[in-house]
Amino acid sequence: MHFASDNSGPVPQQVLDALHEANTGHVMAYGADPLTDEVTGLIRDLFEAPNAAVHLVATGTAGNALALSTLCQPYQTVFCTPCAHIHMDECNAPEFFTGGAKLTLVPGDDRMTPEALRHAILNEGNRGVHGPQRGPVSLTNATEWGNVYDPDQIKALAAVAREFGLPVHLDGARFANACVALGCTPAEMTWKAGVDVAVFGGTKNGLMGVEAVIFFDPAQAQSFELRRKRGAHLFSKHRYLSAQMAAYLRDDLWRGLALRANTACARLVDGLRDAGFGFANDPVANMVFIRMPRSVHQRAMAAGAVYHIWEGALEGDDPDEILTGRLVCDWSTSDAEIDAFLTVIGE
Amino acid sequence: MHFASDNSGPVPQQVLDALHEANTGHVMAYGADPLTDEVTGLIRDLFEAPNAAVHLVATGTAGNALALSTLCQPYQTVFCTPCAHIHMDECNAPEFFTGGAKLTLVPGDDRMTPEALRHAILNEGNRGVHGPQRGPVSLTNATEWGNVYDPDQIKALAAVAREFGLPVHLDGARFANACVALGCTPAEMTWKAGVDVAVFGGTKNGLMGVEAVIFFDPAQAQSFELRRKRGAHLFSKHRYLSAQMAAYLRDDLWRGLALRANTACARLVDGLRDAGFGFANDPVANMVFIRMPRSVHQRAMAAGAVYHIWEGALEGDDPDEILTGRLVCDWSTSDAEIDAFLTVIGE
Amino acid sequence: MHFASDNSGPVPQQVLDALHEANTGHVMAYGADPLTDEVTGLIRDLFEAPNAAVHLVATGTAGNALALSTLCQPYQTVFCTPCAHIHMDECNAPEFFTGGAKLTLVPGDDRMTPEALRHAILNEGNRGVHGPQRGPVSLTNATEWGNVYDPDQIKALAAVAREFGLPVHLDGARFANACVALGCTPAEMTWKAGVDVAVFGGTKNGLMGVEAVIFFDPAQAQSFELRRKRGAHLFSKHRYLSAQMAAYLRDDLWRGLALRANTACARLVDGLRDAGFGFANDPVANMVFIRMPRSVHQRAMAAGAVYHIWEGALEGDDPDEILTGRLVCDWSTSDAEIDAFLTVIGE
Amino acid sequence: MHFASDNSGPVPQQVLDALHEANTGHVMAYGADPLTDEVTGLIRDLFEAPNAAVHLVATGTAGNALALSTLCQPYQTVFCTPCAHIHMDECNAPEFFTGGAKLTLVPGDDRMTPEALRHAILNEGNRGVHGPQRGPVSLTNATEWGNVYDPDQIKALAAVAREFGLPVHLDGARFANACVALGCTPAEMTWKAGVDVAVFGGTKNGLMGVEAVIFFDPAQAQSFELRRKRGAHLFSKHRYLSAQMAAYLRDDLWRGLALRANTACARLVDGLRDAGFGFANDPVANMVFIRMPRSVHQRAMAAGAVYHIWEGALEGDDPDEILTGRLVCDWSTSDAEIDAFLTVIGE
Repeated sequence: MHFASDNSGPVPQQVLDALHEANTGHVMAYGADPLTDEVTGLIRDLFEAPNAAVHLVATGTAGNALALSTLCQPYQTVFCTPCAHIHMDECNAPEFFTGGAKLTLVPGDDRMTPEALRHAILNEGNRGVHGPQRGPVSLTNATEWGNVYDPDQIKALAAVAREFGLPVHLDGARFANACVALGCTPAEMTWKAGVDVAVFGGTKNGLMGVEAVIFFDPAQAQSFELRRKRGAHLFSKHRYLSAQMAAYLRDDLWRGLALRANTACARLVDGLRDAGFGFANDPVANMVFIRMPRSVHQRAMAAGAVYHIWEGALEGDDPDEILTGRLVCDWSTSDAEIDAFLTVIGE
Repeated sequence: MHFASDNSGPVPQQVLDALHEANTGHVMAYGADPLTDEVTGLIRDLFEAPNAAVHLVATGTAGNALALSTLCQPYQTVFCTPCAHIHMDECNAPEFFTGGAKLTLVPGDDRMTPEALRHAILNEGNRGVHGPQRGPVSLTNATEWGNVYDPDQIKALAAVAREFGLPVHLDGARFANACVALGCTPAEMTWKAGVDVAVFGGTKNGLMGVEAVIFFDPAQAQSFELRRKRGAHLFSKHRYLSAQMAAYLRDDLWRGLALRANTACARLVDGLRDAGFGFANDPVANMVFIRMPRSVHQRAMAAGAVYHIWEGALEGDDPDEILTGRLVCDWSTSDAEIDAFLTVIGE
Repeated sequence: MHFASDNSGPVPQQVLDALHEANTGHVMAYGADPLTDEVTGLIRDLFEAPNAAVHLVATGTAGNALALSTLCQPYQTVFCTPCAHIHMDECNAPEFFTGGAKLTLVPGDDRMTPEALRHAILNEGNRGVHGPQRGPVSLTNATEWGNVYDPDQIKALAAVAREFGLPVHLDGARFANACVALGCTPAEMTWKAGVDVAVFGGTKNGLMGVEAVIFFDPAQAQSFELRRKRGAHLFSKHRYLSAQMAAYLRDDLWRGLALRANTACARLVDGLRDAGFGFANDPVANMVFIRMPRSVHQRAMAAGAVYHIWEGALEGDDPDEILTGRLVCDWSTSDAEIDAFLTVIGE
Repeated sequence: MHFASDNSGPVPQQVLDALHEANTGHVMAYGADPLTDEVTGLIRDLFEAPNAAVHLVATGTAGNALALSTLCQPYQTVFCTPCAHIHMDECNAPEFFTGGAKLTLVPGDDRMTPEALRHAILNEGNRGVHGPQRGPVSLTNATEWGNVYDPDQIKALAAVAREFGLPVHLDGARFANACVALGCTPAEMTWKAGVDVAVFGGTKNGLMGVEAVIFFDPAQAQSFELRRKRGAHLFSKHRYLSAQMAAYLRDDLWRGLALRANTACARLVDGLRDAGFGFANDPVANMVFIRMPRSVHQRAMAAGAVYHIWEGALEGDDPDEILTGRLVCDWSTSDAEIDAFLTVIGE
């Protein structure tokens, strides 16, 4: 009953096999190997973007921070939601990599609205040299609250960004989960909707630690490789990143893994709904934020369930107080685990 | 005949096995897993440093830059050699991670002398607030030229640093090759000789990408974890770093791999010496800088040998001009490859 | 009728005289002159802080950004209000000087409440290495909205900071105006209330460009001089900063200037109140935020009044819409100007 | 007998008068005042550069660091001499403002040669993403050793920079002294010789603290104003910088002041030469590096002369050891002071 994070599970056998397969002979380091070229080609095909600049990094934070630093000057500000990973969970990495840019929090929930975005943009960059200048708009899909923007919603936000000449960054740590939930293509979720640079996440969806940063206009990627190197994120034995990503792309493994995670989550959601509990999000991807009484959370955890309380504190006097817990499924979450959890909370 | 780099070879089967073994079930992310604890213990044991702070990162540049940023204020300068990896090959990563510190190049070769170091230190930090203040001394062992400092040499350099109250950083990308060449213990090469923080490299010696950063005084490591996170170098699926490092430490695999690399290099060196060529370094570890006529280099490369010309240009009019080539052996370099190379250059 | 800013007026004759008087012979540069020593002594006396570290800079932003960078690590966050000058009007200078720290906006108005501060602190720094760590609390007095914290209010906020071991910074661009409005001593407004570092502003109160940064615990100022130098804020001909500050301190000129500005503002406030308009702040210092219909603002500006509309837009269809204008008085604002303005708006 | 620095003397009466004259009424802050416009026009005229972007700052380090940060990416390196002020005397300000760029020291003396520059450029930027990329070339005129590049020498260096597409920065802390020594126009010393951005220094030549940063191609200045603001170098009461610079430009005051300084230095040089001492520089501007026995330096200082020993240590056993002292003249250095010094050393 481990629902703490999609960072907690194992990787599928295909990934181990790919590492094994790649582990032969000498190849040139730093990405000058054939497997890396192959990955570039596979991603361009998948995204229907034959000219895209594609670079691999090992952490999602690296993908986000490097991509933003390429698009954002140090005297600018990035527009994001108050719960954005780049704001909440990267220990100032965006500020570090951009050389001191600011993050402007667009008021609202985890899904930005075009109105709130336009308002926030208008409010910034209107004080001449005194305030920060307007910089990139950063979206997350699926969001940190497990919600999903559909392509039209992204298009509407990107249109606002375009009005002001601002580029759009997509944090895709759970890109696959969103894509599968939406039933759309990667292109529809990104450049066709106005996204300039996407981080196509692999780590949370079954890789050991690989993300692809994709610039749809390669001119925007000009400094990325240098920033990756000086950020110490260029792997010498790059083939081991490429091998994982190649496995992820072959036979649509990435889609299959996300489908398993989303399906597991749906099973969990159904059970929770049947048990009469409410949700703090629209759990169409692989995370559910469940609103249950403290006593139920306590019983679940006592029985061995592992997950985070997102709102409220597990310890407290009132057993009936409603606390929000975050449960995350990954490709390896078993029906048995889910059913065991549902049994515990249903008791 | 691939001698381009110790970044080019495969990893030993034990590493793949360890990844396979670690790939089971759910564990807490970001290093809060039992395997990571085990690795910390193994490294403390190996280094006879029960209180050391130990952190894993995936690239050597990350290890160096993060370690230096922990020890060096932005208004200070790091003392290193003109050929130091941190100066030559990290695209300003030390400047980036320290927030703009300087590197002061201590004149001389790849092995700093105590006299040159003292002179450089005296020359800096004597202009009040106008110049940079004195910061860490950074050594590399084995050096970028494949030479080795013995513990007494490190001790003498560290003693100079101590005179001025400066900490000592050791870039150990080829730590194992040096240690095996010296026949000393890791402790003798580090804290017993006055090193404050060592990067114990795994990547060049058979791992996919893992380095251990070891602070012998944990108080000095205070901000390291935060800097690692904001540098985007904290792995969520940390177990896959730990698994590799655990394999590396078990049964002294690290030592065995380095011994294989050094032994291969010795075979190469013997052959080159027999062929009458001179060396630009003292090739006791796994790299030889060989001085051969242009025509011989050209013949070798035409026959498929892969390595870098370090001094001079491969193309040129004079076939007899002596060029320095760098040949690197790793644990997987075969006798057959070496002998093939020796045959080609001996023709 | 120039009420645009207290940056717009001239300097009093005493300042010019002091520059003239200091302009004789050769003295050592970079602050190693007797006048600078005298200023240090005068400020220590004024603040009843015999051990304070005192440094002069030429801009308020430099004072704030350098002071914060001395107290705040790059992986921390500064707590301030949403309208703080450091957030709104310094073009990311705090982020730049701290090496990428974040600013956490404490919800509420221009005067932080202890409850809101505690809540904001509790919300940050509770995500381990993932989020930014808690850093300094930054207050402004008088605030950007011309309001004033009294010593008890500062004490209450500083007490919250102390609970969490956080230092307190005071942006004192309008320190004198607050101090005069409160009728308290500089010590009561700062270290006696728990402030660790104060920027004692001179520029907005009659100097050409001089601010004193005062660390009450000199140990906290350790790196300030180096940061000032590398920030390019150490003046070689430092005597001209010192001369201005010395004049400012002699005979309590600073207090007299602020009294004139506040008194002028009070005259303006009385007239506005008599004219039946409401205020968006509590105008006890030298700024009034006046709520008047668009048509009245338009008439005033057409008649030559110079000031900024703070909320709303001067152009618009509805002549009766209430817009908030900011009017600032300085030591040189004349009764005639005020009366002329009141006449215009009263027509 | 104060020859410590051209930072030590007073300012001429015209500067005080200009401050007095500018000190009337209210004007818009931050450079939006008529005097600032006038200064821009005067500088464009003086430099025969009608489109130049002109910005004032208060310190030479600010001018250099901000100009370089506008031209240099954080993953690049600046080419300068080993004795460049930006390297030796700015406490890492260039590294700070550029976000972590490196400085590559072009071997040789204070005046770079085209051959040495070309060699240094070729040596950098040839390691792909591993090393820093090539960035601006930075020259100082007059140099830190009081020597002067003539326009042809600058042209030859700029031509090398152009070969590689690199911009040229001129540190003109002693621009006027060089210009007067050369008898050339400001345009000949700058854009006509290939300089992209010049810092036209006023501080060392008689202002309290004002330097003009001049971009001959305004497109290169795009971010300068934002960088100046976030560097806390935009003065709110900007008129007091402009007033000084306006006075400096009117009636060629800048040239007259430099002429006085250079003439004073020539008198000193003549006397020293007559006394039989040798020089470590070619003292055509306002600094002489004089090689005299320790005993003579000691006698001079005992008699009250103030200057710095540049090479060697004043204290020492051997009275006959030759030490190099730096003597600097400014516009206010009197013949009497010089003669008194010559008398002392001639005794």
